[in-house]
Amino acid sequence: MSIKPAAAAEAHDLVISRLVRAPRPLLWRAWTEPELLKQWWCPKPWTTEVRAFDLRPGGNFHTFMQGPDGGTSDNPGCFLEIVPYARIAFTSALLGGWRPATPWLCFSAVITLDDEEAATRYVARVMHPDVATRDRHAELGFFDGWNTCIDQLEAFAQQLG
Amino acid sequence: MSIKPAAAAEAHDLVISRLVRAPRPLLWRAWTEPELLKQWWCPKPWTTEVRAFDLRPGGNFHTFMQGPDGGTSDNPGCFLEIVPYARIAFTSALLGGWRPATPWLCFSAVITLDDEEAATRYVARVMHPDVATRDRHAELGFFDGWNTCIDQLEAFAQQLG
Repeated sequence: MSIKPAAAAEAHDLVISRLVRAPRPLLWRAWTEPELLKQWWCPKPWTTEVRAFDLRPGGNFHTFMQGPDGGTSDNPGCFLEIVPYARIAFTSALLGGWRPATPWLCFSAVITLDDEEAATRYVARVMHPDVATRDRHAELGFFDGWNTCIDQLEAFAQQLG
Repeated sequence: MSIKPAAAAEAHDLVISRLVRAPRPLLWRAWTEPELLKQWWCPKPWTTEVRAFDLRPGGNFHTFMQGPDGGTSDNPGCFLEIVPYARIAFTSALLGGWRPATPWLCFSAVITLDDEEAATRYVARVMHPDVATRDRHAELGFFDGWNTCIDQLEAFAQQLG
């Protein structure tokens, strides 16, 4: 599915595009097997508990993160779209079975994987309902946090190879 | 896909289950062809303009209703799931391409059609993020409004036959 948002809507997005030095099949495995996902999903030394991982449109996707200082981050949501080896979309706006959520931070994320040179172009487009939510996400450390996770994903996928 | 919400979540739902005296294929046509949908979608004498109808998961579904007194109701959203002749899910929580929305009323609706006797069991399950939103929807006239539309759908589908 192509996304053709209006220019105004694109202004609500935060986007990371990275060339990741690992093959798509290994990145796909690292993303879609919860026992693997939990090993790179949040910036270390925080840890991830995968509370639900029903990898299909409308399936629950729920992670719970915990920091060494006792801080926590609870993130229920649902998968929206799965295209094997190419695309995963998920949102915090809905829970499993399409049930509306009451997210502490409302966003949808579309992750795309494409071959590029001997590596993978990894793009994360994170869409928000408005500029205020986008800015809040940025101020919470979106770019540092997600880039750190992509570093961890790259290193982890290289180990899988 | 089956929906197995927790009991607590089900309390956020408004549900209508009706035996509609029309065959499923005609109800499906009346629902999925925008020129037909607009003829029964909102209680008359209000009229419906279908501003977007991209019938696929993540496709825009946008209706705009207008009353004889000049009142209007603008309802952008997106389709979530389409199972031909059996099931349509859509939401106001997201727009096309999975983009989070800022709905004036947040809900997801799952419509199911099943053969029953010589007619069709038509179930509309409308899910809300919390009890307050459910109650607001009920107070806005959910049951009267949606039942009137189902009456109109039944009469319209019978004419199609």
